[in-house]
Amino acid sequence: MALKLHGLAFSTCTARAATAIYEKGQQFELVPVNLTAGEHKQPGFLAKNPFGQIPVLEDGDLTLFESRAIATYVAEKYKDSGSDLIRHQNLKEAALVKVWSEVESQTFHPVISAIVYQFLIAPLFGQQTDQAVIDANLEKLKNILDVYESRLKSSKYLAGDFFSLADLNHCPYLFYFMRSPWTSVVNERPHVKAWWEDISSRPSFKKVAEGMTFGQK
Amino acid sequence: MALKLHGLAFSTCTARAATAIYEKGQQFELVPVNLTAGEHKQPGFLAKNPFGQIPVLEDGDLTLFESRAIATYVAEKYKDSGSDLIRHQNLKEAALVKVWSEVESQTFHPVISAIVYQFLIAPLFGQQTDQAVIDANLEKLKNILDVYESRLKSSKYLAGDFFSLADLNHCPYLFYFMRSPWTSVVNERPHVKAWWEDISSRPSFKKVAEGMTFGQK
Ligand SMILES: N[C@@H](CCC(=O)N[C@@H](CS)C(=O)NCC(=O)O)C(=O)O
Ligand SMILES: N[C@@H](CCC(=O)N[C@@H](CS)C(=O)NCC(=O)O)C(=O)O
Repeated sequence: MALKLHGLAFSTCTARAATAIYEKGQQFELVPVNLTAGEHKQPGFLAKNPFGQIPVLEDGDLTLFESRAIATYVAEKYKDSGSDLIRHQNLKEAALVKVWSEVESQTFHPVISAIVYQFLIAPLFGQQTDQAVIDANLEKLKNILDVYESRLKSSKYLAGDFFSLADLNHCPYLFYFMRSPWTSVVNERPHVKAWWEDISSRPSFKKVAEGMTFGQK
Repeated sequence: MALKLHGLAFSTCTARAATAIYEKGQQFELVPVNLTAGEHKQPGFLAKNPFGQIPVLEDGDLTLFESRAIATYVAEKYKDSGSDLIRHQNLKEAALVKVWSEVESQTFHPVISAIVYQFLIAPLFGQQTDQAVIDANLEKLKNILDVYESRLKSSKYLAGDFFSLADLNHCPYLFYFMRSPWTSVVNERPHVKAWWEDISSRPSFKKVAEGMTFGQK
């Protein structure tokens, strides 16, 4: 039975799940959710995700939400096809995938999502961009990327010399961030720059990025 | 070789990792880190965790940080002893453990940690408690626990009828929250109340909670 992904192609969280599915050589049916009409807060959708957010993955009778959980599920279910996103045959490598996936979720995500919200999303909703929030988070982002720079000097990817979920999970927000006026934060750090060019040019993410047209006419 | 956990017994993140280790029937050596003296920002510690935070787990030549990553690693390494925190033999149950672990990390944690910071930690650092932050986050917490209440009506624990990492990860912050003046938020929801009484009275967490004396004389 085909995987059904409820979400929107331009949404960062949908993009994260979609990229993982493509990395595993799988296909899915994208079921659009009309956020403007509030479809995600209606009983039909809340029965799939009681928090009323996209994405949701349906795989037969299994219904999952939370993009990182969906990505991990897909990586485990199809562990023997496509790229090995979780290093399931090596306990130590798998542990490092988890460490750097948590870094994305706990440390990188709150900072980059605050910036992307301010410069890309707020204006579309008629809100004023809060430059103080951007500035404070750019400082934090620089510190985080300093750690990444030094990490990526000693290994090609975050968890080791292999592409993994830890890298993949960064793609959607970095993609929108790279449309901002502050790309030098990435480009001035040569190993971070090379890493970003590498992970964003994988066929899986390139396909997903085609749909990431948020804020474009 | 013994597991070495660098951290402090009263720290929520250290407590999360420690609880997982005890659930697996394992022991560890707690190596204290002097946060007051800034030991966690010194080169020795930064070599273990470049973000300069506790906890860090050393297992032989493997060094891990991020409490949820440590807990998952321990759950996988010792998958056949103690309680099965990740449902490693059932892909669907394992997926639901991931979903509800992500709910803790992405949705519950930012809200409850903001409250605990304001009422417990800020005063100890001579900062004024910001009641507006507490109030806003209490409203969010009520909405989150409404979802939990309805979930816990249909299954005994968050991911299903089995205790898992998804439940365990909630313990440290809920423990400090239950010392606040707002415990009715938990107690007025009978299934959430029963769940909290259940998970907080497991031997693993009871042992950890003995050291969670933050703010007590
Ligand atoms: N932690 C969740 C976040 C999901 C999320 O924020 N989804 C957004 C779209 S990217 C959404 O549904 N927003 C509408 C809303 O929250 O009402 C995940 O990673 O899946
Ligand atoms: N996401 C991290 C957070 C770690 C964290 O916030 N640790 C605190 C103690 S609970 C700490 O080291 N604080 C000192 C600092 O950040 O400088 C985890 O779950 O391990």
